[in-house]
Amino acid sequence: MDYAFRLDFKVRDYECDMQGLVNNGVYQNYLEHARHEFLLASGINFAQLAKANINLIVVKAELHYRFPLKSGDNFRVDLNVRRSSKIRFEFIQDVYRYPDDKLIMNATITGTAINEKGRPMLPDEIAGLFPE
Amino acid sequence: MDYAFRLDFKVRDYECDMQGLVNNGVYQNYLEHARHEFLLASGINFAQLAKANINLIVVKAELHYRFPLKSGDNFRVDLNVRRSSKIRFEFIQDVYRYPDDKLIMNATITGTAINEKGRPMLPDEIAGLFPE
Amino acid sequence: MDYAFRLDFKVRDYECDMQGLVNNGVYQNYLEHARHEFLLASGINFAQLAKANINLIVVKAELHYRFPLKSGDNFRVDLNVRRSSKIRFEFIQDVYRYPDDKLIMNATITGTAINEKGRPMLPDEIAGLFPE
Amino acid sequence: MDYAFRLDFKVRDYECDMQGLVNNGVYQNYLEHARHEFLLASGINFAQLAKANINLIVVKAELHYRFPLKSGDNFRVDLNVRRSSKIRFEFIQDVYRYPDDKLIMNATITGTAINEKGRPMLPDEIAGLFPE
Repeated sequence: MDYAFRLDFKVRDYECDMQGLVNNGVYQNYLEHARHEFLLASGINFAQLAKANINLIVVKAELHYRFPLKSGDNFRVDLNVRRSSKIRFEFIQDVYRYPDDKLIMNATITGTAINEKGRPMLPDEIAGLFPE
Repeated sequence: MDYAFRLDFKVRDYECDMQGLVNNGVYQNYLEHARHEFLLASGINFAQLAKANINLIVVKAELHYRFPLKSGDNFRVDLNVRRSSKIRFEFIQDVYRYPDDKLIMNATITGTAINEKGRPMLPDEIAGLFPE
Repeated sequence: MDYAFRLDFKVRDYECDMQGLVNNGVYQNYLEHARHEFLLASGINFAQLAKANINLIVVKAELHYRFPLKSGDNFRVDLNVRRSSKIRFEFIQDVYRYPDDKLIMNATITGTAINEKGRPMLPDEIAGLFPE
Repeated sequence: MDYAFRLDFKVRDYECDMQGLVNNGVYQNYLEHARHEFLLASGINFAQLAKANINLIVVKAELHYRFPLKSGDNFRVDLNVRRSSKIRFEFIQDVYRYPDDKLIMNATITGTAINEKGRPMLPDEIAGLFPE
């Protein structure tokens, strides 16, 4: 599979829980950071949008945990995008440990953009990123 | 819907991000804490299991974000359980703000238990909690 | 010692790290939440101030870790306040496990308030909370 | 000042709170990760020590917040070490934004090592890192 974007990470010890494994909730942090870096590389600044009261929000997250990450692991988040409706878009995000390419997680994150009044509002610059 | 367990929370400001809303990843923390408190109330101690090298792990999380929580919100996590296969079990977890009962999230978390060698191993005490 | 405010907590498993103890950084979360709840009880809303571009910020934190918290522990954060300069105020925050009153942490957190331009600016309502 | 170790970071958006700034507690995460990477580079594996029931713990943290980090900032944690007593050691950790070298934080973290029974116990390999 070809991916549009890749971001590399290393597990930090404070992300591991008493099982010695990365805690479940932490993976969403990794995925979010990868999405924001992808958006930034595409000219879209999440922080500036938030200041302008345009909030990119997640409406659905589907996470398949395939194999746990642990202290010291290096991994990458691979990312693709697609439009799922007029106002919704999807990030396909797969996590691989490296250098052995062990599959860690498959995730699909569905998002939309809302304005100050909570109404869906997809700015053109964002819509353009997600081909219908 | 009747729930087997309920846990009450209040949003903490450090859980909110620059949008002024609870960050996406934080909901998994809420859900996990509710599951562990449910297990504890049922006589199953996650921490003691981890020490005995029996790890309860999440294999799938499906989260539907319905409405965002923000600073100061009170909410509850309602929980039900069911067996989804011989070695897998599911937590149905719904989040409601109160006192207005606004629906915040619907989640289904699928888990299993593995032993030291990473092999699925569902202790009887846990299996008994999830009727087939 | 008499305290002006007390907030009760229970350790959540995701706050523990691979040592099976609450991670060092998490204590600052507890302390912040106790400060914000104290402020709220005193009529000062951190979130509303932030929206009005008045930021309460920490300039110094001194944390003495006396004994670690672990999974399942109940504890309280006791709090007192004092003014340390014209524009700075201090929170004395002590953490005790209960019911055995084991001392967990002594902390002193020094704060100030700044406006949109980053200049110190202590609103009267806040100044009034911290007697000189 | 010469430092023994340096680790580079970039602020992740989930680390920022409703003020749009990195939350106070998050800095301890940065500092911990830098310390563990320094230890690892010196041949000491925090995770393996924890498994062997030798726990490196923080007994005191003194954090001077000089200037806040915000979304997108690049920064480094510079680190030095010294022995402060027979069984205690200190990390001097300074945080600078780059490329403009703006000082963000000065921190001194005092640690020790304890064994399974909670008794101070400084293994030779660790003691050797911190000259008296």
